[in-house]
Amino acid sequence: MTDSRHLKIIVVNSLVAPQGADRSTQAQAERARALRIGLLEEGYNILAALPPDADLEQQISKLQPDVIIVDEQSDAALRNVVDATANARRPIVCFTEDNDRKKMHAAIEAGVSAYVVAGLSVERVKAVLDVAIARFEVDQKLRDELNETKLKLAERKVIERAKGLLMERHHCSEDEAYRKLRRLAMDKNLKLSEIAQRMLDFADLLI
Amino acid sequence: MTDSRHLKIIVVNSLVAPQGADRSTQAQAERARALRIGLLEEGYNILAALPPDADLEQQISKLQPDVIIVDEQSDAALRNVVDATANARRPIVCFTEDNDRKKMHAAIEAGVSAYVVAGLSVERVKAVLDVAIARFEVDQKLRDELNETKLKLAERKVIERAKGLLMERHHCSEDEAYRKLRRLAMDKNLKLSEIAQRMLDFADLLI
Repeated sequence: MTDSRHLKIIVVNSLVAPQGADRSTQAQAERARALRIGLLEEGYNILAALPPDADLEQQISKLQPDVIIVDEQSDAALRNVVDATANARRPIVCFTEDNDRKKMHAAIEAGVSAYVVAGLSVERVKAVLDVAIARFEVDQKLRDELNETKLKLAERKVIERAKGLLMERHHCSEDEAYRKLRRLAMDKNLKLSEIAQRMLDFADLLI
Repeated sequence: MTDSRHLKIIVVNSLVAPQGADRSTQAQAERARALRIGLLEEGYNILAALPPDADLEQQISKLQPDVIIVDEQSDAALRNVVDATANARRPIVCFTEDNDRKKMHAAIEAGVSAYVVAGLSVERVKAVLDVAIARFEVDQKLRDELNETKLKLAERKVIERAKGLLMERHHCSEDEAYRKLRRLAMDKNLKLSEIAQRMLDFADLLI
C-alpha cells in the first residue's frame, strides 16, 4: 500500500455549467471545481477530469487510474462509470448529495467502493480514498473466491460427466476412467476439464 | 427498508473517563457522550450503550439490534464487536480518529460495513447508517452465494463418489447409479448428498 497522495485519480463530473444553466447545475459545477482545487492543493495526481459522457472505458483503459472519483448527481454518470469498469474493475468513490436509499443500494450493488452522502470535504478525502481502496481489495478477494468456486463446480460437472461416460462405455471403474482422462490431458497438454469438455463435445457423434 | 430513525441501535464505546484519566481518554468519553446526545436528539432508538468489555455477544443476541455503532479508538473494542457478531452477522459502523491503513484494512476484512475516519457528525449519521446497511445487505448476498456454491461443490463431490462406487460394484451406468441413489434418498426422506455420505461412511465396512 502506497501513500494515497501517489494515487492516480480520474475525476468524473460535469466540468462546466453552460451559461443560463439552472441553479442546481451551477452548484454542481462549483462543487466539481472545488473538489479539483482541493485535490490538487493536497498534492493528489489527477490524471484526467472528464465529463460523464466522455469515452470513459477507453480513457480508463489508457490511463489505468488507481481510483475513480464520481462527483455528479446524475444516475447516468455513475452508471457510465460502472459500465466502463465492468470488465476491469477499479475502486469507484461516489460523492453525492442524494440520500435516496434505492439509488444508494443500487450503487453499492453495482460495485461502488465508497458512497459518501454530503461528506465532500477535502480534509476527509484521504481517509475516504484509503477506506475505498481497502474495501475494493476485500471485495475483490471475495468475488475472486466466488468465481473460482463457481469455476471449480462447473469443471467438476464436466469432468464427472466425462468420467461417467468412460465408465459406461468401457465398463471400467471410476479410478480407471479418471486415469484414462488424466493420461489424455497430459498427452495433449490440456487441463483435465478441457479434455473432458472435448470428449463430451464429440461423445454424441461417436455413439 | 424502513426509515433509519426506526433502527434499533447498540452503541459500543467507553461510557465514562475515570477521574484523572489522560486527555485522550477524556476526549473519547466526550465524543461518546456527544454521539449519544446527537442520536437521541435526532430521534434514533438506542437500545443500549455498552462499554466494549461488556458481555457483548449475549447482549446482542438478546437485543437483536439492526446496527451496531462502535465509537472507540481501541482495536480491542472493534475486535470484541466483530467476535460477538461472528455467528450472527450484523451491520457494524465504526467511527474512529485513527487513519492507520492496516487497521482500516483489517476492520473491513473482518466485516465492518462502514469505517468512517474523522467523520462523526450527527447530520451525516443518517446517510452513514443507510449506506452501511445497504453495504451489509450486498455483502451478505455475496457471502451467501459463496457459501452456497462451496456447499454445492462439497455435496457434488460426495454424490459423485457414491455414484462411482455404485457403478463399480454393480457394473451399471451412471444413470442407473444415479437412479439407485435417488430412490434410496426418497425412501429415507434424505437429501441426495446425505444418502451419498451415509453410503460412503459404510462402503469400507461392506467391501
